[in-house]
Amino acid sequence: MSSVPYTVPVQDMRFTLEQVVKLEDLTALPGFEEAGADMVQAVLEEAAKLASSVLAPINFAGDRQHSKLVAPGVVQTPEGFKAAYDQYRDGGWNAVPFDPEYGGQGLPWAVAFAVQEMWQSANMAFGLCPMLNQGAVELLQAHGSEEQKKTWLEKLISGHWTGTMNLTEPQAGSDLSQVRAKAERAPDLGDEIYRIKGQKIFITYGEHDLAENIVHMVLARLPEAPEGTKGISLFIVPKFLVNEDGSLGARNDVQVVALEGKMGINASPTCTMAFGDESEGAVGYLVGAEHQGIKYMFTMMNNARLAVGLQGMAIAARAYDQAVVYAKDRIQSKSMTRPKDPPAPIIEHPDVRRMLLTMKAKTEAARALAYYAGKHLDLGSRHPDAAVRAKAQATVDLLTPVVKGWGTDVGCEVSSLGVQVHGGAGYVEETGAAQHFRDARIAPIYEGTNGIQANDLVFRKVIRDSGAAAKAFISDLLETAAGLEGSGNATLLGIGARLKEGATALETATTYIVGAGQSDPVGAAAGAYNYMTLFGLVAGGSMLGKAALAAASRPAGFDAQYLDGKIATARFYAEQILPQAQGLVAPITQGAASLNEFAEAMF
Amino acid sequence: MSSVPYTVPVQDMRFTLEQVVKLEDLTALPGFEEAGADMVQAVLEEAAKLASSVLAPINFAGDRQHSKLVAPGVVQTPEGFKAAYDQYRDGGWNAVPFDPEYGGQGLPWAVAFAVQEMWQSANMAFGLCPMLNQGAVELLQAHGSEEQKKTWLEKLISGHWTGTMNLTEPQAGSDLSQVRAKAERAPDLGDEIYRIKGQKIFITYGEHDLAENIVHMVLARLPEAPEGTKGISLFIVPKFLVNEDGSLGARNDVQVVALEGKMGINASPTCTMAFGDESEGAVGYLVGAEHQGIKYMFTMMNNARLAVGLQGMAIAARAYDQAVVYAKDRIQSKSMTRPKDPPAPIIEHPDVRRMLLTMKAKTEAARALAYYAGKHLDLGSRHPDAAVRAKAQATVDLLTPVVKGWGTDVGCEVSSLGVQVHGGAGYVEETGAAQHFRDARIAPIYEGTNGIQANDLVFRKVIRDSGAAAKAFISDLLETAAGLEGSGNATLLGIGARLKEGATALETATTYIVGAGQSDPVGAAAGAYNYMTLFGLVAGGSMLGKAALAAASRPAGFDAQYLDGKIATARFYAEQILPQAQGLVAPITQGAASLNEFAEAMF
Repeated sequence: MSSVPYTVPVQDMRFTLEQVVKLEDLTALPGFEEAGADMVQAVLEEAAKLASSVLAPINFAGDRQHSKLVAPGVVQTPEGFKAAYDQYRDGGWNAVPFDPEYGGQGLPWAVAFAVQEMWQSANMAFGLCPMLNQGAVELLQAHGSEEQKKTWLEKLISGHWTGTMNLTEPQAGSDLSQVRAKAERAPDLGDEIYRIKGQKIFITYGEHDLAENIVHMVLARLPEAPEGTKGISLFIVPKFLVNEDGSLGARNDVQVVALEGKMGINASPTCTMAFGDESEGAVGYLVGAEHQGIKYMFTMMNNARLAVGLQGMAIAARAYDQAVVYAKDRIQSKSMTRPKDPPAPIIEHPDVRRMLLTMKAKTEAARALAYYAGKHLDLGSRHPDAAVRAKAQATVDLLTPVVKGWGTDVGCEVSSLGVQVHGGAGYVEETGAAQHFRDARIAPIYEGTNGIQANDLVFRKVIRDSGAAAKAFISDLLETAAGLEGSGNATLLGIGARLKEGATALETATTYIVGAGQSDPVGAAAGAYNYMTLFGLVAGGSMLGKAALAAASRPAGFDAQYLDGKIATARFYAEQILPQAQGLVAPITQGAASLNEFAEAMF
Repeated sequence: MSSVPYTVPVQDMRFTLEQVVKLEDLTALPGFEEAGADMVQAVLEEAAKLASSVLAPINFAGDRQHSKLVAPGVVQTPEGFKAAYDQYRDGGWNAVPFDPEYGGQGLPWAVAFAVQEMWQSANMAFGLCPMLNQGAVELLQAHGSEEQKKTWLEKLISGHWTGTMNLTEPQAGSDLSQVRAKAERAPDLGDEIYRIKGQKIFITYGEHDLAENIVHMVLARLPEAPEGTKGISLFIVPKFLVNEDGSLGARNDVQVVALEGKMGINASPTCTMAFGDESEGAVGYLVGAEHQGIKYMFTMMNNARLAVGLQGMAIAARAYDQAVVYAKDRIQSKSMTRPKDPPAPIIEHPDVRRMLLTMKAKTEAARALAYYAGKHLDLGSRHPDAAVRAKAQATVDLLTPVVKGWGTDVGCEVSSLGVQVHGGAGYVEETGAAQHFRDARIAPIYEGTNGIQANDLVFRKVIRDSGAAAKAFISDLLETAAGLEGSGNATLLGIGARLKEGATALETATTYIVGAGQSDPVGAAAGAYNYMTLFGLVAGGSMLGKAALAAASRPAGFDAQYLDGKIATARFYAEQILPQAQGLVAPITQGAASLNEFAEAMF
């Protein structure tokens, strides 16, 4: 049991990209001409091999072994991780979505999301290394100087070096305005060179043995910097300095000093990093202008949030994959419909079906929503028409906190159901179901807690534009519902009716939130989390609605039973899950009185 | 951080017992004359000392150390467990609810539940030992011969020996009809003596170093036994045989052969037990008649299910206790209402309040529901009027799967929120929040999975009596709602209105379930889990409604702020949680078509 197989759902990924997200809208864009269905299928199938035969087999043992601090400053990743990383890097997988000018493959984000889902499903602790690296790449692509790009970007894109994000300090978690790490200009060393001193915590892959160099993106404060978020600058602080010829130079004064003992993602080192402890300061290079660090960080953070939402759904997908295998195999109790036969596989029991279908439906809804956001990321940056770009960007901005917040909640719920399907065996670590449950639990916390996502959704994405983007999205929901209702197919009609009810609930809640933004911001904040959940439930339902419509048209290249299953999944979601959204409207629109009246001493 | 304090909510326990559950109804019963409010308060305060100063301090380290198989057949519990158990036993705590004829203290179950909540909150892995022992005591109280009671019962009640439940085998988990352990009569050894051979798994505290002897209650099958559940007998199989004079005799052939590596409750050994591996069989003594083992087991199992539900709410209570301390202490980001002040404790942020209030309200609702079931257990066994006894027993039968299923789901949800309130620190084991989350996850699985509880509720407790007990309970809900609505107090009126809506939703769902019992049992099974959740949500709301009514009458002996908080908690639950019940009615009443149409290959 110690290495649980991972069967990559390539057919559902393909279907979602081609039929739900409509990849064809992207192949019309400059640079994406090659990214047609055939090419995408080939990429997915090749990635699936690496995910299932290299990354998945070391997931369980990696969790048992942990990454370890084996000597001062030295972190050893679990057995097999270095060899797996070599294969990952040499296969060019790190470069998938990045700029071809610096060695990237320039594939659409929508496609990259499907590929990245596989790494996270196969081995979330491994997948974190490229995920953080991606943040560094995006920062440098957007804000690095030409020279910085030349020095750092190509190696980060190829994966020969890896990048990290150094934001958090003990007193500065959700609140980055409290960052205290110091930066001082070092004109003796050169222009734009600084000395960095301070400590950072919770640094994922801050130190490891997978790559030759580690490039830290570090937030720190200059001596005369204003207080708060407007006084923070962003620096490149490499583990090894780099010589003119690109070879590695002196060891910089940045060291891992401790690893966290975590509940999960144990194969990934979560480091406490010390900068400048043994010198006048670690050498750092300013990115962009001084005091602009937080602004830069946000250009990266939005994509990172989508990546974490994707991670949540990826763990859900893995937990589902494993639970189905178990439920088909495990014999226990008689079937209700065949009481005279011997005990049946548990997949025949209604409540086990309910659990598996909940897992499947929520996972596929979250998958489609993440890929859909990825597509709009591509449209937002590549479409020739500025109005289309702006509308797409507004959609991805709106959906980012939903993909992150709801997607990671789905990861937790589905991986918990995965444990439950296994019964007592699920609580035993050997089965592997428990690992998914423990791993998944970090995703609602990092990259902005889900409470922060909910606030982001409500205040920045809905209230700020008076609900314009949200209402545009709801119009799209209603259009999907109308398409289903007008299909002349009874099953689709039922799905459409439920979706319409969901969209109406979301509309009511949105109207309340927009109003409360003016009259009662605390009320809006009190309803934020339920609003995010409602949004996710309904948006997910619309994705499955689109999928059902597409499946009913029987597109070529997909198994008949798969297409039937897609419609049946949408139906289950519409009947069993979407109606639960109705129960959230009253709590959202209730205001904050019941929260406010609670004196601190009453808790 | 490694030892997190536990502040026992004695005031809420007292209030719940006196004001919500109405302990005074019990002190009128024969045998309970002494169990008045003062005596109960003294018991709770004494128990709280042991829980907070002895059991809680070894909870975190126990999880890190695990119970270990240190030599063949030898299990070592973590440091401090033996000394803590000595204090627990010597304080007479093991005897609280049991028969005074055998050394028990004869306190009401309702009171025992409050005491037991403390052990589970303080140290769930420790608390499992008395919890399993209680099962053995109840079995022997109900079905043991006088001689068996004399030999085993007193020592189990005093806690000098501990009892275990040996039911599960690899192929017989939820489905005990598949038990294969063998029993053979051994007339050469004596009347009612049997030789037991076989293997049992998942045996909690099957071996340990806390007590002199371990008394296993074992299900096994006689050679000529009929197949299925009707061919299983129950045996006492002690670790050490007992001499005529009560002293310990020969070592019996029952051995622990392995411990499970679990996700949580690591300080409790979960054993694989081998019976008769090194002999003709372990010596076992038949309890009651042959082939009646499953029936006997059920007399114990219902109370055990209540105990597990209590455990779920106890972990919720502990997680809440810890999260509040953290949220008052942790400074991060500015308050929305005081934007010019420095960053505030996170308890001021609306979404953190929402989380803490959700934790508090669900925990207190689940606490009251568990104690309420405990009271009806007492009424059902002690009331002089047979009709009252029957009605009370019907109530406890109805509520048992709700207390277990919903209570343990609350345990998981609340402990997950506890992690979330801690942010990144919550994912780090050192904080202790993660342990509660891992510990809580077993409770929906053991003692009958929550799916089995849902089926039990729907088929045995609602359909079998055509909804009579459920409808009686709903009448009580409506009466509570009417009391609130007639109170002339606006807050109570609002709570009453929401409760009435909830009761109506439960009524609609109940009517559907009763009908489906005849026409579409698979449909009833498909809706069972959501029905259990709906039942729990509404029943919990009614408990808080009763509490609010009582608090509004300002009873003596409670802090004014505590009473205000009780009303405010009920209001939060009514506004933010109860309406979510509405979203479950459609899924419950939808039938099983969306489940049934799923061919196995579509998963």
